[in-house]
Amino acid sequence: MSNMLLKNAEILTPDGIIQKGDILIENDIISKVGSIDANFTADTVIDCNNKLAIPGLINTHTHAAMTLFRSYADDMLLMDWLQNKIWPAEAKLKSEDIFWGTQLAIAEMLKSGTTTFADMYFYMPQVAQAVAESGIRAVLARGMAGVAPTADQALVESEQFYNEYNNAADGRITVMIGPHAPYTCPPDYLKKVVALARRLGAEIHIHLSETSDEVQNCYKQHRMSPIKLMDELGVLDCGTLAAHCVHVSEDDIAIMKSKAVRVAHNPGSNMKLASGIAPVPQMLEAGLCVSLGTDGAASNNNLDMFEELRLAATLHKANTLDPLVIPASQAVEMATSLGAKALGLSGVTGMIKAGLKADIVLIDMDALHWYPRHDRVSLLAYSAGQGDVDTVIVNGKVLVHNHRLTTIDEEQLKYEVQRRGMRLVSQ
Amino acid sequence: MSNMLLKNAEILTPDGIIQKGDILIENDIISKVGSIDANFTADTVIDCNNKLAIPGLINTHTHAAMTLFRSYADDMLLMDWLQNKIWPAEAKLKSEDIFWGTQLAIAEMLKSGTTTFADMYFYMPQVAQAVAESGIRAVLARGMAGVAPTADQALVESEQFYNEYNNAADGRITVMIGPHAPYTCPPDYLKKVVALARRLGAEIHIHLSETSDEVQNCYKQHRMSPIKLMDELGVLDCGTLAAHCVHVSEDDIAIMKSKAVRVAHNPGSNMKLASGIAPVPQMLEAGLCVSLGTDGAASNNNLDMFEELRLAATLHKANTLDPLVIPASQAVEMATSLGAKALGLSGVTGMIKAGLKADIVLIDMDALHWYPRHDRVSLLAYSAGQGDVDTVIVNGKVLVHNHRLTTIDEEQLKYEVQRRGMRLVSQ
Repeated sequence: MSNMLLKNAEILTPDGIIQKGDILIENDIISKVGSIDANFTADTVIDCNNKLAIPGLINTHTHAAMTLFRSYADDMLLMDWLQNKIWPAEAKLKSEDIFWGTQLAIAEMLKSGTTTFADMYFYMPQVAQAVAESGIRAVLARGMAGVAPTADQALVESEQFYNEYNNAADGRITVMIGPHAPYTCPPDYLKKVVALARRLGAEIHIHLSETSDEVQNCYKQHRMSPIKLMDELGVLDCGTLAAHCVHVSEDDIAIMKSKAVRVAHNPGSNMKLASGIAPVPQMLEAGLCVSLGTDGAASNNNLDMFEELRLAATLHKANTLDPLVIPASQAVEMATSLGAKALGLSGVTGMIKAGLKADIVLIDMDALHWYPRHDRVSLLAYSAGQGDVDTVIVNGKVLVHNHRLTTIDEEQLKYEVQRRGMRLVSQ
Repeated sequence: MSNMLLKNAEILTPDGIIQKGDILIENDIISKVGSIDANFTADTVIDCNNKLAIPGLINTHTHAAMTLFRSYADDMLLMDWLQNKIWPAEAKLKSEDIFWGTQLAIAEMLKSGTTTFADMYFYMPQVAQAVAESGIRAVLARGMAGVAPTADQALVESEQFYNEYNNAADGRITVMIGPHAPYTCPPDYLKKVVALARRLGAEIHIHLSETSDEVQNCYKQHRMSPIKLMDELGVLDCGTLAAHCVHVSEDDIAIMKSKAVRVAHNPGSNMKLASGIAPVPQMLEAGLCVSLGTDGAASNNNLDMFEELRLAATLHKANTLDPLVIPASQAVEMATSLGAKALGLSGVTGMIKAGLKADIVLIDMDALHWYPRHDRVSLLAYSAGQGDVDTVIVNGKVLVHNHRLTTIDEEQLKYEVQRRGMRLVSQ
């Protein structure tokens, strides 16, 4: 057994308040939070003076390997972007590209304090390899499009991937089933997806009601909203993580509540792609679990959860003209404990609490925007940034130390993603 | 004469494109941009390999010393915030607090790439002292409230301040007249302000149409919008920098255009305070000069112009459901050349161009979010952050070198602002 002691930290507790104390980690588990005897000796001791210990941030929706398309095609209409830029470039992706693109995403996420992410893409064994090698925690789904020539293959691959990788990498990887969206997965296909998810006992990760076009077209084709359609098809009975939910009605929210749908809100992507502003205050008010995601780097264009957290706390104030909605502490919850809940990882991660996995970020409060310190939770939500992330621990292992990655060779990574990124977009 | 050579940079040119080249600075002026003879010897040479040289960012609206209230009072209703928190704390401010609070703001702005800021507050000689000592460029206005007991004193102080400090600190300081807002400055008072501005030949910096309450009350009291009222009172004839302009109508925009009013858009503050979303695409479409500001750190809660730039490029896409509004290059312009124009500093700063003052930021493109590099302007707007700021040059002097301040003692600064911040909010 190995142990690690985080001494004299200011700790963000599950109650959302800050307390001075120590954190003892034994193997991959937080074994004690509070005051540890000064004479106690641990294998590793980290002095946390002037550091804020927070639960690792949880990014509940991304397409990690799309980092390769970061800055390739911006400020475009959605279909122009997809048809003329993203899809042709994606068609050139090889499995090794996926490994490196995912590794870039993981490196960026770790350095900015994210310890768990939910991914939906393809060549998922390479994604799992990057997760396993890097040490991060992830919930992976093989993206499936019923309208694509690969539709049936995706079902087979999803099942294989689930059987091979669910609970892999010392339990750091769990697997969901990933039907892309109602507009790419017709009802007959979704029925197969639901049957597969039920057979495996797997949960579902899907894009829902991202744009108003999607919702309008769904009404035209099916005379009901995407949420209602998913409910009728049984998609919401599997345990469902729904990304976006920008254009949902009160009726939709009631359905989502009754089926305990968890939402991945992606404010940065929704803004940049002009999808709109999700009714997050209403969803929270209804008691839904609303978590935060970055979406892929091609539509964000980074994977910094501090930005999403701040947007969650500010965008909805502007949209509702109510400065009281989504206060700092609630935005922090959305990025941590609600993220864990959204991914089916409550009781595993998302809080600094004895018995949970040791997924902890040490924030250096040395930067000028941490002064003066009237309220640390407010500073975390409204002032802090990824540059303040000093140390990142996942599953009891230090993956970022003094702002540096311990498991990923950053120079090799940059070399690989630069040449691969250029190849993918060349004519 | 001293000179400095920035060698082998990637340079953001006034056309908005990136070109490889060198920049020669002689004293405080950019004397040449392009290829400098390899044998040329300069007093100082900075190797700009892997660095992006951009014009210094321009923050056109802040209340610098309010950094002292950062994180003191958030997630509150506006009047509750002002009456029960901010005003009582402000009443305790002494001139030395203003110096240190401003210095904190300047330190934070410099380290995040801002080389010029427009301030409106009080104890302005102390603000000017902080500007003079730090080396930053600033446009300063003594805030004036006609409804306050200090109304007449503020007119006198504004005139004195203008006479003493306009073009002070080697020309780095210029002075504007700062009537706070229509709702704190009744018409009779504004007439005196306009008379003073005319007599001095000074321009005006004012808050306009920040909240819908303000606009509604103005209609009730004066049967016209704040913009129309200001026009009638001659405020818009002085050369006017108008902060916020969240709630402006088409008619207001037409008036603003006819009077060449320059706008300081503060998306972060407008979101956090739930003021609303300014019609920036319409104002730009009408040909208005729209620049960017952070507002004070009590309502933001940092002074990071990268955040404002990104919000400008994304918030209005979400609000209009049009992904083509305010593309990356336009957002960068708003944070640079349009900022200079807004502050009456066109031809002085805001571009990397021979003949202008040497206000230049070197961005280190080493961080992971700069990979792969399909489009550097897009990366600057959508991916970059303040942590990428490596070197900051203002008026030909290096004020930040390798992420460190050269003119401000950061440890002393933190000590001073922490103890002063705590004193101001103690009961």
